[in-house]
Amino acid sequence: MHVHILVKPECVEAFKTATLANARASVQEPGVARFDVVQQADDPTRFVLVEVYRDAAANVAHKQTEHYPVWRDTVAAMMAEPRTSVKFNQIYP
Amino acid sequence: MHVHILVKPECVEAFKTATLANARASVQEPGVARFDVVQQADDPTRFVLVEVYRDAAANVAHKQTEHYPVWRDTVAAMMAEPRTSVKFNQIYP
Repeated sequence: MHVHILVKPECVEAFKTATLANARASVQEPGVARFDVVQQADDPTRFVLVEVYRDAAANVAHKQTEHYPVWRDTVAAMMAEPRTSVKFNQIYP
Repeated sequence: MHVHILVKPECVEAFKTATLANARASVQEPGVARFDVVQQADDPTRFVLVEVYRDAAANVAHKQTEHYPVWRDTVAAMMAEPRTSVKFNQIYP
């Protein structure tokens, strides 16, 4: 899943801090194969979370962790527009 | 870098075959940290190549491999529109 997030300019650093904490916790989940965070080179207010779950249950389990709602509620007011998600099937690896 | 590719419906399987071969060769390059290939769940003609290079030189080196131009020329006629790339800075990991 790719989560596309547009952050308010004044919130970019706070968003990075909260999202790094969430990513570090998320990669500890057994069902999480990838939880990369990238920032668009020509527009630092645009981020993508590149999340790869080992199965559908792992995605459900992620939402039930302690860290997920903390991140969700922390960054809610930092977003310039609602975030959007696109689901993918992993072809490689 | 995320490379967004829209493939002609009749070329999806051939595109996957050529792109898998390219991904498998690309992850052998010392400067390539990630070369994931994903297919959009609700539209199997849409792919993203999730490429992470260790530095700018590694991206240049990728273009100079034997496998890159083979892939580029093989898939050129399979695309429904020109591919687009978005450059990112890696925040995590």
